[in-house]
Amino acid sequence: MKKWVYSFGDGQAEGNSKMKDLLGGKGANLAEMCTLGLPVPPGFTITTDVCTAYYDKGKKYPGDLKPQVQESLEKIEKKIGAKFGDKTNPLLVSVRSGARASMPGMMDTVLNLGLNEETVKGLAKNSNNERFAYDSYRRFIQMYSDVVLGVEHYHFEDLLDLKKQDKQITQDTDLTAQDLKDLVKSYLDKVQSELGKPFPQDVNEQLWGAIGAVFDSWMNARAITYRKLNEIPASWGTAVNVQSMVFGNMGENCATGVAFTRDPSTGENAFYGEFLVNAQGEDVVAGIRTPQQITIKGKQKNNLTLPSMEECMPNVYNDLVKVYKRLEAHYKDMQDIEFTVQDNKLWILQTRNGKRTVFAAISIAVDMVKEGIITKEEAIKRINPHSLDQLLHPTLDPKAHRRILDRGLPASPGAASGKVVFTAEEAESKAGMGEKVVLVRIETSPEDIHGMHAAEGILTARGGMTSHAAVVARGMGKPCVSGASGLRIDYKTKVMKVGGIDVNEGDIITINGSSGEVILGEVPTIQPTLSGDFATIMKWADEIRTLKVRANAETPEDSATARKFGAEGIGLCRTEHMFFESDRILAVREMILAESQQGRKLALDKILPMQRGDFAKIFTIMEGLPVTIRLLDPPLHEFLPNTIEDMEQVASDTGVNIEEIKRRSSQLHEHNPMLGHRGCRLGITYPEIYAMQARAIFEAAIEVSANGDEPVKPEIMIPLALSKKELDILKEVIDQTASEVFAEKGKKVEYLVGTMIELPRAALKAGEIAETAQFFSFGTNDLTQTTLGISRDDAASFIGIYKDKGIFENDPFVRLDEEGVGELIEIAAQRGRKTRKDLKLGICGEHGGNPASITFCQKIGLDYVSCSPYRVPIARLAAAQAYIESQEAKKEAA
Amino acid sequence: MKKWVYSFGDGQAEGNSKMKDLLGGKGANLAEMCTLGLPVPPGFTITTDVCTAYYDKGKKYPGDLKPQVQESLEKIEKKIGAKFGDKTNPLLVSVRSGARASMPGMMDTVLNLGLNEETVKGLAKNSNNERFAYDSYRRFIQMYSDVVLGVEHYHFEDLLDLKKQDKQITQDTDLTAQDLKDLVKSYLDKVQSELGKPFPQDVNEQLWGAIGAVFDSWMNARAITYRKLNEIPASWGTAVNVQSMVFGNMGENCATGVAFTRDPSTGENAFYGEFLVNAQGEDVVAGIRTPQQITIKGKQKNNLTLPSMEECMPNVYNDLVKVYKRLEAHYKDMQDIEFTVQDNKLWILQTRNGKRTVFAAISIAVDMVKEGIITKEEAIKRINPHSLDQLLHPTLDPKAHRRILDRGLPASPGAASGKVVFTAEEAESKAGMGEKVVLVRIETSPEDIHGMHAAEGILTARGGMTSHAAVVARGMGKPCVSGASGLRIDYKTKVMKVGGIDVNEGDIITINGSSGEVILGEVPTIQPTLSGDFATIMKWADEIRTLKVRANAETPEDSATARKFGAEGIGLCRTEHMFFESDRILAVREMILAESQQGRKLALDKILPMQRGDFAKIFTIMEGLPVTIRLLDPPLHEFLPNTIEDMEQVASDTGVNIEEIKRRSSQLHEHNPMLGHRGCRLGITYPEIYAMQARAIFEAAIEVSANGDEPVKPEIMIPLALSKKELDILKEVIDQTASEVFAEKGKKVEYLVGTMIELPRAALKAGEIAETAQFFSFGTNDLTQTTLGISRDDAASFIGIYKDKGIFENDPFVRLDEEGVGELIEIAAQRGRKTRKDLKLGICGEHGGNPASITFCQKIGLDYVSCSPYRVPIARLAAAQAYIESQEAKKEAA
Repeated sequence: MKKWVYSFGDGQAEGNSKMKDLLGGKGANLAEMCTLGLPVPPGFTITTDVCTAYYDKGKKYPGDLKPQVQESLEKIEKKIGAKFGDKTNPLLVSVRSGARASMPGMMDTVLNLGLNEETVKGLAKNSNNERFAYDSYRRFIQMYSDVVLGVEHYHFEDLLDLKKQDKQITQDTDLTAQDLKDLVKSYLDKVQSELGKPFPQDVNEQLWGAIGAVFDSWMNARAITYRKLNEIPASWGTAVNVQSMVFGNMGENCATGVAFTRDPSTGENAFYGEFLVNAQGEDVVAGIRTPQQITIKGKQKNNLTLPSMEECMPNVYNDLVKVYKRLEAHYKDMQDIEFTVQDNKLWILQTRNGKRTVFAAISIAVDMVKEGIITKEEAIKRINPHSLDQLLHPTLDPKAHRRILDRGLPASPGAASGKVVFTAEEAESKAGMGEKVVLVRIETSPEDIHGMHAAEGILTARGGMTSHAAVVARGMGKPCVSGASGLRIDYKTKVMKVGGIDVNEGDIITINGSSGEVILGEVPTIQPTLSGDFATIMKWADEIRTLKVRANAETPEDSATARKFGAEGIGLCRTEHMFFESDRILAVREMILAESQQGRKLALDKILPMQRGDFAKIFTIMEGLPVTIRLLDPPLHEFLPNTIEDMEQVASDTGVNIEEIKRRSSQLHEHNPMLGHRGCRLGITYPEIYAMQARAIFEAAIEVSANGDEPVKPEIMIPLALSKKELDILKEVIDQTASEVFAEKGKKVEYLVGTMIELPRAALKAGEIAETAQFFSFGTNDLTQTTLGISRDDAASFIGIYKDKGIFENDPFVRLDEEGVGELIEIAAQRGRKTRKDLKLGICGEHGGNPASITFCQKIGLDYVSCSPYRVPIARLAAAQAYIESQEAKKEAA
Repeated sequence: MKKWVYSFGDGQAEGNSKMKDLLGGKGANLAEMCTLGLPVPPGFTITTDVCTAYYDKGKKYPGDLKPQVQESLEKIEKKIGAKFGDKTNPLLVSVRSGARASMPGMMDTVLNLGLNEETVKGLAKNSNNERFAYDSYRRFIQMYSDVVLGVEHYHFEDLLDLKKQDKQITQDTDLTAQDLKDLVKSYLDKVQSELGKPFPQDVNEQLWGAIGAVFDSWMNARAITYRKLNEIPASWGTAVNVQSMVFGNMGENCATGVAFTRDPSTGENAFYGEFLVNAQGEDVVAGIRTPQQITIKGKQKNNLTLPSMEECMPNVYNDLVKVYKRLEAHYKDMQDIEFTVQDNKLWILQTRNGKRTVFAAISIAVDMVKEGIITKEEAIKRINPHSLDQLLHPTLDPKAHRRILDRGLPASPGAASGKVVFTAEEAESKAGMGEKVVLVRIETSPEDIHGMHAAEGILTARGGMTSHAAVVARGMGKPCVSGASGLRIDYKTKVMKVGGIDVNEGDIITINGSSGEVILGEVPTIQPTLSGDFATIMKWADEIRTLKVRANAETPEDSATARKFGAEGIGLCRTEHMFFESDRILAVREMILAESQQGRKLALDKILPMQRGDFAKIFTIMEGLPVTIRLLDPPLHEFLPNTIEDMEQVASDTGVNIEEIKRRSSQLHEHNPMLGHRGCRLGITYPEIYAMQARAIFEAAIEVSANGDEPVKPEIMIPLALSKKELDILKEVIDQTASEVFAEKGKKVEYLVGTMIELPRAALKAGEIAETAQFFSFGTNDLTQTTLGISRDDAASFIGIYKDKGIFENDPFVRLDEEGVGELIEIAAQRGRKTRKDLKLGICGEHGGNPASITFCQKIGLDYVSCSPYRVPIARLAAAQAYIESQEAKKEAA
C-alpha cells in the first residue's frame, strides 16, 4: 500500500523539510518544525503524488486514500482531545494547499472546517465564547462557499456590510454574538438561494469538498499563469495540509500575524512583521484593519501609534523572537513566518524562505556569508539569476504617476521615454539632433536596425517575445514592448491611436519593457548601480565558475557594454548588422544587384574599408580577448527594399533601373527564407563575399595587434554548414585570403576557423566537421527551429496553446529543449571532441543567457556561453550555480 | 611501397575482373581476358588510386609511380620484342581511360603513342609498309594534339580535306604514303604555329602527357555532367590503361570493329556487330565510311551490299564467334566487344557488359534465366529500376518530326499533347468538354491541383525538379516539364512567347516529361505495355522481396493506377488534396474564415459527407488492403485565395466581407510556412477538423466493410508531431470519435493510429512517441528539409552549385541523405521498436520510389515503402534487388 498521507504534531512528524517534492513546501516545513519542538498545531499532509494521480485518473482519488485520511484525522483527534463533527467537543481544521515551490495566494484555503449547526453550539459552549463560535462559523461559510461551492464572496460581504450599516458600526469586532448568528442565518439562506441546495452540514462532505477544491485549484487560471511566469511544471502538483485550528479570533489575548527574520525589501538584518489582535489570517490579507508592528523599532520607523507586540504582548513577543532565531539558524535563510496567538499562546502555522526583492536577496546572502551562516557557494545559489535583470536596466520610479495607454509584452527589460517616431530614418535623424525618441512600428525588420540603435526604446503593435524587435532589442539591451495589440498605427498620417487617444509623431511616451506598459508622457527613471553587494556576489561567482561567459555583440557600443558587464570575449559578432548601416547599405545593394562576380567585387571593395574599421574598433575594445566573427548569414533579399518607394530610392541611389530591382527582388524571393539561400550557402555561391570579410578581419587584426598590447586572435565562424565539404571549401578561401594579407602586410596573426552547429545534420556529422572546424558554436536558435520544425517568426499562432496543453513545459526558444535539441548538442559535442580533443565548444543562441540552459551547457562540458551584453552578469551567476550543482551531483554520485 | 600499376599479357595478369574499383572496368576485364587465354595485346593499368592521389595532391603523382610505370613498360617491351622510342623496332602504345563504371566516350584516348620523326621510319621499315606508318603517325599527331595539347581536331581535318581535294579523292584509304608524309609535315607545322612550340618528339614526354590528359579528363565538363546524370561519385576516379598497339590499318587483311553478343535494341539472342576494313577504332566512331556487318543475317536485315565478316574473313569470324561465346558464358551477360584484326589475326581490345535498352535488358535477363545461364536473382539484379520509367509512360514516336520550342527540366516522365490553357479553371472546364489540354503556368500552387488533374500534362516556366508542379505531377503520373525558362507567359493576354513564336490559348503543344522538350503541335505517342517479359520480371521480384510496396494516392483514379501497378496498399493518402476540389473549397474557406469553433463546425459539417465519399471510394478500390490516411497537413492559408480577383470571388461565394478575407489572409500569412502552423499543430488548435476527418474515415470504413468481402482497417496518420503529448491529445480525439461513430452505427472497425516522423525531434523522441503511435511513416521530404535546413521550394538557387562542388553527391530530395537523414531514421526505428516490438515502419517521402533509398530502407528493416503509383513497379524491382543485396551481404559477413 502506498503511503499517501503524512502526519505531524506533538514534537513528532513522519516527514521533514527535505521532502518538499512529496509534501510541498508548507507540509515539509510543518513536519520539520514539529520535530524541532516548535508549537505547531497537529495535522497531516496529503502528498503531491495524490494530486498527480488525481489528474491522471480524470479527477479520481487513489482507492486507499480515504482510509489513510481517516486514520490521520483520528491521530489529530487524539492529540487535541476533540472529535471531528462532534456536537459537544468538535475538532475544527484548516485545509490548505502547499506546492513544492511557493505560489503565494495562487491557490485556495479553507479555515474553521468542521462547523455546522450542531458543532457550532459545542464550540460556543466549550470555548465559553458564543461570539467567537459564530464568528468562526460565518467565516467558514463564506470561505467554503467561495472556494468550494463557487458562491462568490461579495455576496457575503454585502450581507456583512448591510448588517454593520443596520447596527451603525464600522468594525467587524463590534458585532455581537447575536449579530453573527443572524449573519450566519442570512449566509446559509444566500447559499441555498444561489445554489438551490443547502450548505453541507456533513463535516466529512465538507472535508472532501475542501480537499477536492485545493486539488482543483492547481489547475485554475491564476495558478496556471503563475506557473507559466515562474517556469513551474504542471506535473509537480500540490499537496493538501489538514491541520487542527488554532484561533486568533477568540478575544483580545488572541492575534494573528506574519513576521520576517530580516527586512524583505532592503535585506537589513532586523526582525520585522505585523499582526492583528482578535483576528484570523484572512483579515491581515483583506486589510480591513491597520495591522500593528511586531517590534518597537518597526513602529517607530512607520510612525504608527498602535502599540507593537513587543509592548502589548511582551511574553508572546519573547517567544516569537526565540522562534525566529531558531528558525533562521536552522534553515540558514531569511524566514517568512505565519503565527497565531490563542489565549496568549504562540502557535506557528508556517515558515518558509521569505520572498524578497533582488536587492534584499543579494544583501542577505552577502551578510550571511559575512556572519558565517552560509558559504559563498550557498550565497550564490540563493540568488535567482533571472532577478538580476531588474538591476541591470533603468527602472521607472515607482512613486511617479503613470497614465497607461496599453499593455504589450515585456519583450526587453528596462524603461525608456522619448518622442514618438514611426520610421527608422526619423529615429536616426532626430537622435542625431540629440533628441530622445521611441521607435514605434507595426513590426520591425532588419532594415530598422539603425533606427532601433538610435532610439531609446522600441514599441511594436505586433510580434511576440521572440519577434525580430524583441530579439534585437534584447541583444542591444534596449527596452522593448512588443505585441501591444491595442495600438492602431497609421504610417501615412503618423498617428498612433490607442484607447481613444491620438498620439502624434513627436508626442512623448514611456515604455516599460519589464512590465509591457505603454505610458503617456515622461515618467522619471532610476539608474542601476553595479557596485557593493552586487559586485561582491559577481566576484564570488567568477571565482567559482568554470564556464566562460562571452557576449553577442557587433558594435563598439555593445562590445563596451559587454566588457563593463564582465564578458570574457565576444561569442557572436554578426557581420550583417553592419551591412545595414546607412552609409554602407547602398554598396551592399549594389553588390546584390550586380550581375557578375566582377560587379560584386567592385561593390565589395567599397564595403571592405568600412568592415575593417568596424572590426578594428571592436578588437581595440576587446584588448586581445577572443572575438568570434560570423561571416554573412542572412539571405540577400533581406538587404533589398520592400516597398515601391524604397525601391525607387534604391534605383536613384544605385543607378539601377527600377524594373531590374523588382526583377532581382522577385528572383531572390523565398518561400521559406529560414531554410533558403543563406549562411555558408552564400559563401559557396559568392566566395568573394567571404573573401572580402576575411580580408577585413585580417587587416583589422594586424592593425590593432600592431597598436595594442595583446595580439588579436580572431575566430572566424562559418554559419549554417551541414557538411565538412562546405568548410573545406570556405576554409580554403579564408586561408588563401590570410596568406595574401599576411604577405602584403609582412605581418601575421593567429586565427581559428570554426563553424556554427545549427542544423541537425551538422550535429550528426560533427565528427567529420571537426576535422576541419577548430571550434563549434551551437546556434541554438536555428537548431531549435530545424529540430522542432518551428519558425520563430510564426510560432505565436500555436505556441501559447502548446504551452497551455502541456506539450511544451517552456517556450523552446527561451529555454533549451534539452530532450530534443539538447541530445543533438550532446551528440555533436561528443563526436566533435572525439575527432579533435581540444575542440572549443560554445553556445551563442538566445539560450546562452538562460540560466536553466546554462546549467545544461555546464553538464555537457561546453567551454563557454555567449549571450546579449545585458545578460552577461546573469550568465556569470548562472554559470557559477551550474558549477556548484555539478559538483554536488558528483558528490552525490560518489 | 604501394602497388600503383598492374601488368597483363601473354595469358597472365596481376589483376582480374573483380578488381573494377581499383583497375576500372576496362583494366579489370583486360586482365581477366588475358587469364582466360584470349588474344589481348600486353599492357598495364595505372590504378584509380593514382587518380585520387593526383587530385588530393593538387595534380601531382605519387613519388613511386614513375619507376613502376617504367618497369611495366619494360615488361611489354619484352613480350612484344620491341622497344619504346627505339628507332629500328619501336613499341607503340595506346593510352585509354577506364573508370569503375562505364562512361562511354566521356573521356580521352590516345592511340599510336611512341611515334616521332625517327620511330616512324623504324615502323615503316619493320612493317614494310610506309603508308601504314605515316597513316599511324598523322593519326597520332591529330589525337595527341587534340587531347593533350589542346589544338582542336578541326585544324587537322581541314588540312586532310584540303589534301583530298588537291588529290581529288574522297576516301582516306586512297591517300598514298607520300600524301601522308606531306600531311604529317603540315600537321607538325600547324602545331608549331598554334602553340609556338614543336610537337613533342620525346616518347616519354608523350606518354606522361597522355596519362596526365586521361586523369585531367576525369574532371572535364562532359565527364562531370555524365557522372551527375548517372549518379557516379567523383571520388571514384579513373584508371589509365597503357597497352601495346595492334593495327587495323595495316592493309586489307586488317580491320577494327565492335560486336554485341545479343541485340542491344531488342534483346534478341543473335550475334551482332560492325567492322571496318583497314581502319583504326576512331574511324568507326567518326562514321567516315559505312561499316560492314559481322554476320550474314545482320547484312540481310540491314539490306547491305558490302560483304559481312562471316563472308570475307571467315577464319577471323570463326575466332570471333568462339571468343564471344566464351565471353558471354564467362561473364554470364551480354557483352560489348571491341576488336582489331591485324594480318588476319584477331585481337580483343575490350569487353564489357553491353549497354542496352530497357526492353532488351528485360528480354535478355528473362531469356538467360530460361537458358539456365543466370538465376532469377541475377536477372533481377540486371535491370536498372530507374529504366523501367521508360516502360510505364507513353513515349513520343521516335520517327515523328518535332519542332522544339524550348527545353526545360524532365520533371515527370511521359509525353502528352493538348491545347494550351493558362488556368486550372480553364483546364477543368475544357477537359470537362472532352478536350485534351496542357496546363501552362509560371509556377503551380496547391490551388491548381484540380486543373493539373484535368490536364494531360503540365508545363511551368519556373521551378526545379522538386517544385510543386514536379512533385505533384510525378505523384499523379502526369508528364511535366518544369523550369522552361525560355517561356514568357502573360496570363492577361493569354499568350506564351517562346523563341519568337506566340503560342495562344487553344494552340496545341506537346511536352516530353522524360527529356524536358516543349514541342509545337501534336506528336504521336506510343502507349506502354506491361505484359510479357516485363510481367515475368515483376513476378520474380514479388516472389523475392520482403519489403512491401505501397502507393501514395488520394483519388480513386490514383488508387486504381496503384493497384494496376501492383501496390499492396496506400502508404500516404493526403487528405488536403481533396479539400481543393472545386465543389468543396468553398466550405473549406468558410471554415477558415469562421471566427468561432461553432462556425468552423458548421462548415466542417458540409465537408464531412464529401470526405466520407472520397474515403469510401478509395476503400472500395483497395479491397481490404491497408490505407494510411494522413490528417490535414498544410497551413490554412494555402486554401485562401492569393489574388484580389479570387478574394472577391470568395467574398461573393461565402458572403464574408472582402476586408475580412484580406485581414484573415494577412493574419494567416507566414514567413516560413514550412515551419509554421501546420500538421498536427492544426489538430491541436482546431481539434474539430481532425474529429471531422476521423468521423469521415470511420463512417466510410463501416459502410465499405458492410458491402465488401474484406473488412477495412484504416490507418490514421498524424503529421508533423514532435512529441508524444501531441499524439496523446489527438489520439484521444480520434478514439473519442471512433466510439461515437461505432455507437451510432452499431458496428466497429479495427483501426491504427500512427504518426509521420518528419522532424528531427520526433526521430530522437521515437521511443516515447511509440508508446502512443502504432506505426511510423517516415516523411522524408520534410525530414530532409529540417535535417539539412533546406527548403525544397528555394533550393534551386544553390543546389546545383552544391552538386557541382561535390558537397552533395546527389540531390538529397531525390536520393535519401543516408548519413544525415538516414541516421535519424535509424535512430527512430531502433528507439521506436524498442518501445513497441511490432511497430509498423514505412517511408512515404519521394525517396520511397528511389532505388538507392529503397536499399537503405531494406537495410534498416523498414516494413514498407510508399511511392507515387507510377513508381510502384520500380520500387517492387528495387525492393527485390535490395533483398538480394542484403542476403549477399549477410553471406559475406558469415
